[in-house]
Amino acid sequence: MTASPAAPLRLTVAALRRFLTDAFLTAGLSHDDAATAADVLALADEFGVSTHGVKLLPGYLRRLAGGGARPAGRPRVLSEGPAWALVDGDSALGVVIGPYAMRLAIAKAQTAGIAYVGVHNGGHFGAIGYFALLAARAGLVGIATANDIPSVVAPGSRQAVLGTNPLAYAVPAGRHPPILLDMALSTVAGGKVYQARALGRPIPNNWIVGLDGQPSSDAGLYPEQASLVPAGSYKGFGLALLVETLSGLLSGAAVTHEIASWMTTGADQPTRHGAGFVAIDPAVWGDRAAFLARVDGLIDEIHAARPAAGVERIVVPGEHEFDHQRRVAETGVTFSADVAEAVRRAAQMAGLSLSDYEAVG
Amino acid sequence: MTASPAAPLRLTVAALRRFLTDAFLTAGLSHDDAATAADVLALADEFGVSTHGVKLLPGYLRRLAGGGARPAGRPRVLSEGPAWALVDGDSALGVVIGPYAMRLAIAKAQTAGIAYVGVHNGGHFGAIGYFALLAARAGLVGIATANDIPSVVAPGSRQAVLGTNPLAYAVPAGRHPPILLDMALSTVAGGKVYQARALGRPIPNNWIVGLDGQPSSDAGLYPEQASLVPAGSYKGFGLALLVETLSGLLSGAAVTHEIASWMTTGADQPTRHGAGFVAIDPAVWGDRAAFLARVDGLIDEIHAARPAAGVERIVVPGEHEFDHQRRVAETGVTFSADVAEAVRRAAQMAGLSLSDYEAVG
Repeated sequence: MTASPAAPLRLTVAALRRFLTDAFLTAGLSHDDAATAADVLALADEFGVSTHGVKLLPGYLRRLAGGGARPAGRPRVLSEGPAWALVDGDSALGVVIGPYAMRLAIAKAQTAGIAYVGVHNGGHFGAIGYFALLAARAGLVGIATANDIPSVVAPGSRQAVLGTNPLAYAVPAGRHPPILLDMALSTVAGGKVYQARALGRPIPNNWIVGLDGQPSSDAGLYPEQASLVPAGSYKGFGLALLVETLSGLLSGAAVTHEIASWMTTGADQPTRHGAGFVAIDPAVWGDRAAFLARVDGLIDEIHAARPAAGVERIVVPGEHEFDHQRRVAETGVTFSADVAEAVRRAAQMAGLSLSDYEAVG
Repeated sequence: MTASPAAPLRLTVAALRRFLTDAFLTAGLSHDDAATAADVLALADEFGVSTHGVKLLPGYLRRLAGGGARPAGRPRVLSEGPAWALVDGDSALGVVIGPYAMRLAIAKAQTAGIAYVGVHNGGHFGAIGYFALLAARAGLVGIATANDIPSVVAPGSRQAVLGTNPLAYAVPAGRHPPILLDMALSTVAGGKVYQARALGRPIPNNWIVGLDGQPSSDAGLYPEQASLVPAGSYKGFGLALLVETLSGLLSGAAVTHEIASWMTTGADQPTRHGAGFVAIDPAVWGDRAAFLARVDGLIDEIHAARPAAGVERIVVPGEHEFDHQRRVAETGVTFSADVAEAVRRAAQMAGLSLSDYEAVG
């Protein structure tokens, strides 16, 4: 049966992964690359970060069809040392380049203790927490950064000067899931404003400023007539500059206006995003088990803090996401209307029938 | 002449540096260490960061006299590789250990490309932007982090779980001064609340929460009956956990309640603060001049952004501080009442006569 556009949509995690992989295969990716790209998007949906999951698929398929993102693009090392590498992303999908680059950083850090990998000729990198998590799964501390077209004002400016420039890190633990933070350095990522715009909802007045540099709660102004606000004003702005340094300036990638929009630039054009990856291996200078036990101890301390009235429990970053993942492993992922629409559009673009994937019920 | 406690106080920058150096010499520091410690504190006052300048001197002298901070402490490398080192701070002053550790990170990064140095047995590290700036002055990107006793709540908790855990970075430029950000990951550093408390002023209600976990504007509650709020809620909290990882967990230093207060713990006790230092040298894989030109270009772009009504100009992090430094080089540093009081107390503790340093006029 073919679902109508208005029908709700729910997929098991396995079906979601199969759908994503099949879509990337029809777009010309290798089996390995399709599985990698599918894993990055699926994990975002499993974590409940619906702005960065399968919702991105139609845009990615469009660029793959146009050639701006190269289905057969192969990230490669341009130059390297024992503790660093520069990677040419070859305009592959960012979600294919990112795992390649972080795995390289991990391998180098396992010998050097710390390693930096800078990427140029990248694409939209999706939810970059995935890359940081690769390090934590291998027992290392991982940090990932990416740049993007300007959409965020400097404190006091009318116009955007930097991208939302996400920063993510992950720290491995022993008994606990890793600590995992993935955040835009704007108050919220642009995707949340697009979502409010699509749903016709007002937004808090610290999310965007209009062309006059004044706060607005009208999501409809973004992005043509408004820009995002840096998180915590000068603190988020300053961190976004550090992210631009790690992602673009040190890697030789495009920065600010040199980057093309993965959404609005012609699908035949590369976007030239940059990204930075840092891995640190505590086992190079100490005992990994002792390190993991200290991380567990710190998480236990934080869990034991008394909550304020109305707060159920105190969590560390990533905990809500891992909880969400456990839940949807049982229930499947239910998509909101805007995401369901994107899934149906992607199915059409890829020539796939959603009824082959949809959960019963 | 001896100034009365109520008199205003102004020192030339040279006199301030001489006063700080003499005070550290009388406390038993070597000439090199006294000059280093004086430079860290003086720069904070030159930058207009009065909470982290000479105001810290009485507390530092107290610990040096008690032995908890060791006047003859010698930071030393415990273990190292080409891209990393672990440093035992030997309970020297944090402002003596920090420059040692960052210089080590710089030297390693000049060959390895990137380096991490973790410090344990440290002390209060003062304004850690100084350490990041050392890297930028050598043409490298520098990142510095430090931990401290718990004073900041987790989102939703009643009690403090992490320190203000400052994060600083510096990026060298060509025509422009370096980009320099030095920030606490609480909404404001504890020093600002102490200052408001001393002056009897109310504070914005996003600086502290009381023991019930609810916001308060009464600075008098801090620190006995209130804790600081993380900057941007979960974003600042998450970054503070990254800082704890880089400063304490990876370095083998004390974390959270293992750390002693540099202000209230007995002066004969070491405080065991931890810190982390990362340096990245763009010249290892590219042309330094080209890198610096790209940084200049980014700063130029940001300067060219149109300001909102009422905003004079758009700046990058550190610009206000370097402007302040240029001004006080001409005018000298004028201290507010609370800092002037600390200077007089320090002079008394060190057996120095302020009239030997004070500017005429």
